[in-house]
Amino acid sequence: MAITFELIKQCSKTGARAGRLYTPHGVFETPIFMPVGTQATVKAMSPDELKAMGAGIILSNTYHLYLRPGHELVAEAGGLHGFMHWDRGILTDSGGFQVFSLGPLRKITEEGVAFRSHIDGSKHFLSPEKATEIQMALGADIIMAFDECVPYPAEYDYAKASTERTTRWAERCKKAHTRKDQALFGIVQGGMYKDLRAMSARDLVAMDFPGYAVGGLSVGEPKPLMYEILEYTVPLLPANKPRYLMGVGTPDCLVEGVMYGIDMFDCVFPTRVARNGTVMTSRGKLVVKNAEYARDFRPIDPDCECYTCRNFSRAYIRHLLKAEEIFGLRLTTIHNLHFLLNFMRNMRKAILEDRFLAFRQEFRAQYQLH
Amino acid sequence: MAITFELIKQCSKTGARAGRLYTPHGVFETPIFMPVGTQATVKAMSPDELKAMGAGIILSNTYHLYLRPGHELVAEAGGLHGFMHWDRGILTDSGGFQVFSLGPLRKITEEGVAFRSHIDGSKHFLSPEKATEIQMALGADIIMAFDECVPYPAEYDYAKASTERTTRWAERCKKAHTRKDQALFGIVQGGMYKDLRAMSARDLVAMDFPGYAVGGLSVGEPKPLMYEILEYTVPLLPANKPRYLMGVGTPDCLVEGVMYGIDMFDCVFPTRVARNGTVMTSRGKLVVKNAEYARDFRPIDPDCECYTCRNFSRAYIRHLLKAEEIFGLRLTTIHNLHFLLNFMRNMRKAILEDRFLAFRQEFRAQYQLH
Ligand SMILES: [Zn+2]
Ligand SMILES: [Zn+2]
Repeated sequence: MAITFELIKQCSKTGARAGRLYTPHGVFETPIFMPVGTQATVKAMSPDELKAMGAGIILSNTYHLYLRPGHELVAEAGGLHGFMHWDRGILTDSGGFQVFSLGPLRKITEEGVAFRSHIDGSKHFLSPEKATEIQMALGADIIMAFDECVPYPAEYDYAKASTERTTRWAERCKKAHTRKDQALFGIVQGGMYKDLRAMSARDLVAMDFPGYAVGGLSVGEPKPLMYEILEYTVPLLPANKPRYLMGVGTPDCLVEGVMYGIDMFDCVFPTRVARNGTVMTSRGKLVVKNAEYARDFRPIDPDCECYTCRNFSRAYIRHLLKAEEIFGLRLTTIHNLHFLLNFMRNMRKAILEDRFLAFRQEFRAQYQLH
Repeated sequence: MAITFELIKQCSKTGARAGRLYTPHGVFETPIFMPVGTQATVKAMSPDELKAMGAGIILSNTYHLYLRPGHELVAEAGGLHGFMHWDRGILTDSGGFQVFSLGPLRKITEEGVAFRSHIDGSKHFLSPEKATEIQMALGADIIMAFDECVPYPAEYDYAKASTERTTRWAERCKKAHTRKDQALFGIVQGGMYKDLRAMSARDLVAMDFPGYAVGGLSVGEPKPLMYEILEYTVPLLPANKPRYLMGVGTPDCLVEGVMYGIDMFDCVFPTRVARNGTVMTSRGKLVVKNAEYARDFRPIDPDCECYTCRNFSRAYIRHLLKAEEIFGLRLTTIHNLHFLLNFMRNMRKAILEDRFLAFRQEFRAQYQLH
């Protein structure tokens, strides 16, 4: 198997767990946050900067890379690893989420999804087989089954039909997937319906994937509902396989996800808000672009040891952002990613020392949830 | 004196010379190219990346920093060095060039220049005293006298009156300048008129500045005319002071400038064209954004040892630029600056080994001038 998961420590009071993920491009400690590099680059960052802050796996995007520069070109360059000069782990999503998000630009059938490119309007067709072929060409360590992310809210009948189709598509992906040096993960759907989640989990677990994602959460539903579904779904997944919660990356949701037994996370949140001038600190978010920081010569977060906080002030970063300078976006992105990766390391340490609940409590007391 | 210049080697056949510039923030080898960091940041670059490629002095901009974030704020942050976390040399221009470029937004009198901000239209007044005060607050190692860059073409009478005023303004700058830890350079003007250049040089040399710039060149005149004026003007400047040719930074002009005895250069050219997808190589320019490089997996310049060329292909860089990814701009900027800094080092080596003319000949044979 390309990917194996070693369970190191199970929290005695919650579902939280610390583990190790063995991949063809290194061994990574879980729980892990995976920075998003949609177009074969984590926006504003260099691979070396990501390494310096301890990033292990990054996520890249089948839909975007298929359209530009094209998966054959990436394969010619030695796959994504060679193309973007990244020798640690890579996970590619299946493109399902993106094509389903295209709305009127796409049409779903049992066979797959016909859609038009958001770049030039050209016509394309993505099926389980095609999504798998593209991901094999991209050559990530972990690839994802082609699924429909059930929107929120969704009628029961729609959610059921969609989830059943996602299961049939998962079978087709598994059949199409032939690369032994990469792992194909299944994605549990089912919307906000517990019986559909149970059905999805049961059917996918029967197919024996090397890892499982929980999809269709963080799609607009209230957080308590998301946590309820997560709490219900995770125990349905095998304990000896990695569990990945897709699209989640705010500190509060990361803590809850870990508590319910999730090992892997990804989200554009830290990099996207960074480019907007919002940074995370141990006390909550800080909009460094705001006028109140114009003469604030302290670092973003005095407790942070990232390159940004070691060398630059809020006043300087604010100036760069106001002046629309690229270096400002670099500095806020570096801080936010470092903050989240470090946050995950601290959570892991708490799990290893069996004090995860205390960590969670302290976090919730300090961090202004928003 | 804050700045001293040591002449190490004089070319036996041309005016080219190798030297050392001693500043409060280090000793730098000349001839030197100074990357431009208009708004207290060299666009897309970090200070560490600049250091890694051997940058010694960077240029920043009085006009821009006065308007945003304001020179008092920069002074509070410990001056430009502290504000932008750069512990090597900094040179600030006087703002003259920018306010004169504002066209209908400015009005010139003997006292100074009234202008409106390009950012918010607010009213301001820049005089020799004000420009010097701002530059003292910014705290660069080298600051420039407030001058008018005579436009091209200009009538003789206009050029004469402007140049005489620039000389009177230089005297006022000298009087206003009280910081002992920074050097104030005079700027020779005179347009394309040799007698005015002679007058300007004579008057400024009489004031005994620690260094001299040649201004008002590379403002749209044909290159042969620029070289003619340069060849005429440089010998009028004292040999024991550094000579700075403002706004020049294409490889062919750098070679000619060095040949006529210039020690310091600055230009937005390498960083600006980089962000446009154009890179310099030992053979001439290469528009890496072009379709012909889509599947070109070679580095930009196989002879270049910069971070970009050591790790990334033309195909990847082209992809990043087409996808409008920040990392693409970073990679082309790194290459172009490294290329120019290395080019200057190679010229210096040729001067030290007294083979500068051969270097120039070889360069002109290889490099496609454009
Ligand atoms: Zn930080
Ligand atoms: Zn290079």
